[in-house]
Amino acid sequence: MASRTNGGSSNGPVDKGADFANYFCTYAFLYHQKEMLSDRVRMDAYYNAVFQNKHHFQGKAVLDVGTGSGILAIWSAQAGARKVYAVEATKMSEHARTLVQANNLQDIVEVIEGSMEEVVLPEKVDVIISEWMGYFLLRESMFDSVICARDRWLKPSGVMYPSHARMWVGPIRSGLVDQKKNDYEAAMDDWYGFLEDTKDYYGVDMSVLTRPFSNEQEKYYLQTSLWNNLHPNQVIGTAAVIKEIDCLTASVNDILEVKSSFSSAISMAPTRLCGFAGWFDVHFRGRGEDPAQKEIELTTAPSSNNGTHWGQQIFMLHPPVHVDEEINLDVSFSMNRSKENHRLMEVEFDVKISKPSGKILPPINKKFYIE
Amino acid sequence: MASRTNGGSSNGPVDKGADFANYFCTYAFLYHQKEMLSDRVRMDAYYNAVFQNKHHFQGKAVLDVGTGSGILAIWSAQAGARKVYAVEATKMSEHARTLVQANNLQDIVEVIEGSMEEVVLPEKVDVIISEWMGYFLLRESMFDSVICARDRWLKPSGVMYPSHARMWVGPIRSGLVDQKKNDYEAAMDDWYGFLEDTKDYYGVDMSVLTRPFSNEQEKYYLQTSLWNNLHPNQVIGTAAVIKEIDCLTASVNDILEVKSSFSSAISMAPTRLCGFAGWFDVHFRGRGEDPAQKEIELTTAPSSNNGTHWGQQIFMLHPPVHVDEEINLDVSFSMNRSKENHRLMEVEFDVKISKPSGKILPPINKKFYIE
Repeated sequence: MASRTNGGSSNGPVDKGADFANYFCTYAFLYHQKEMLSDRVRMDAYYNAVFQNKHHFQGKAVLDVGTGSGILAIWSAQAGARKVYAVEATKMSEHARTLVQANNLQDIVEVIEGSMEEVVLPEKVDVIISEWMGYFLLRESMFDSVICARDRWLKPSGVMYPSHARMWVGPIRSGLVDQKKNDYEAAMDDWYGFLEDTKDYYGVDMSVLTRPFSNEQEKYYLQTSLWNNLHPNQVIGTAAVIKEIDCLTASVNDILEVKSSFSSAISMAPTRLCGFAGWFDVHFRGRGEDPAQKEIELTTAPSSNNGTHWGQQIFMLHPPVHVDEEINLDVSFSMNRSKENHRLMEVEFDVKISKPSGKILPPINKKFYIE
Repeated sequence: MASRTNGGSSNGPVDKGADFANYFCTYAFLYHQKEMLSDRVRMDAYYNAVFQNKHHFQGKAVLDVGTGSGILAIWSAQAGARKVYAVEATKMSEHARTLVQANNLQDIVEVIEGSMEEVVLPEKVDVIISEWMGYFLLRESMFDSVICARDRWLKPSGVMYPSHARMWVGPIRSGLVDQKKNDYEAAMDDWYGFLEDTKDYYGVDMSVLTRPFSNEQEKYYLQTSLWNNLHPNQVIGTAAVIKEIDCLTASVNDILEVKSSFSSAISMAPTRLCGFAGWFDVHFRGRGEDPAQKEIELTTAPSSNNGTHWGQQIFMLHPPVHVDEEINLDVSFSMNRSKENHRLMEVEFDVKISKPSGKILPPINKKFYIE
């Protein structure tokens, strides 16, 4: 045998050891922190949210959930916070502490290593700031920890940074659909050669495994969503908001499942409907009775020059649909957490295509995995 | 945030959930089984070991530890075994069962899903067959499970397949040493640009993290052993056996640590000593009083046309040593299991270089990680 260790699924309900091994370890690398800290869209949004709304921070107690290298905690202190609790589950906490000291903020920022669910703070806080968003917003399920922090430690008058989040889906065209189809077909060609060799040289007929092998490869190449930073002109129809989250009130129950039905008109013919892209935005608006002085938006929508490290998640239609005339899509979307790993997601699309003549094409149903 | 799940380290002693997540999941993919089943050196060795030594299998009870797709169990049955117990910890067991049925061997081969440490068999066995070897033999620490199987289930007269294993180390030259050095330097250049940007745009001085970042990158690019299939002419001096294992008698204690001192003459000047390669071989010899009719060897040594999926593990010397005349190396080698993950290894080399004049160069000490 010989295998590289490789993240994967665990069995049954959340196994903390497996979850730590699978999930948190990535965040313990400075290399990965640097990638996030180099995302200018992300950095500008949080920086502006904090420094253009100093009134929310001056003299206040702040909690940073998942502080990583400590950047949001440091900004909060620089904006005038009286006290910042910076909670981090991984050993990155040690680097955060070093960085806080190097910036001479050790009297204000207290770095606490521990999981948010278990940490005890000496007081309730005025602000919870956190960069908790995963691919397509909810991958990683880290917002659960923010909800837990809010319910336990935010004052009744407290403010969430960010305050709101939205998920978007839009129809797209992309050459990825051809590329992945080719990859899949090459893998299957290779398999048939392998079957012949194994029978000829080693006397074992493995053809009974063709179906499970093809299922596995199909899942990998065709049904797993892809990371991509799309150009806006690859979005070929109207995009829809499929979920809105008020970070001050949302419960874990509200985000366990995302369900939405929407319509989208594709007017850009001729083209190919190659699938859908999913992205998100978050807003920093303060709270109703204590609003932001300057509202800030962070968007991960397709953009010609403001790509993010989140990009978009691409869900491909195989085969793509050739669009010769204006069509209308009626889409039912649902997303649930994977049973094997609550930080990963399973997505389903039901698509009805109507032509201008009123003709309706056979419905399309596709399942995807956000790995 | 946004991270792909990624194998990594757990805390403290073996956490079974984390271990399963980190380790076994890879073996649950047919794609990975196919990679191993396509390794002709591996397949030929086991095939010949079984079918050229049918006397060990005819009418006998056999245990296959970690059967994967079931190939060794099927061969054992085809060679005449009365009963084969095929133990597999992952869901691959289901495919193995399907394959056994498709080859009409379900009356002989019993596939058992479970960990070898916990499985209970109805009888003791005459043969234990297993393909347990990881990179540089011991990575994965799977031989522990074979030892456990042997001590619990092998008859006193039983035979191990394979029966013996050896680890080798030899001095090498390789362009990888330059490539990885460049990668490391590019990562550091990038870091210094990042520091400037973060200070200029976001008011935070991160230079205090330069040392830990460089340590992290050094570990990744320079101190982590590399997979490679070397050409024999890249081995520039005599290779040495650093460990011999008798699979019938070795205990876990015997393989927890590998320590060896050896000498190697480099006669191929001018050249560069770029580091060392580690590989292994195993032999199928039966047992003293019940020997193989035909001894078979499986070697993963550098070879011009018989590369394996194991390849060799490369431990690089940065900077490489220019060799202008014949030199002699006195090497102390040690390998231990990583504290964070008992399936990964930490390696240390102490190298003394003597010139023909008798002059001795300053000693070199390097640590490496087999990830």
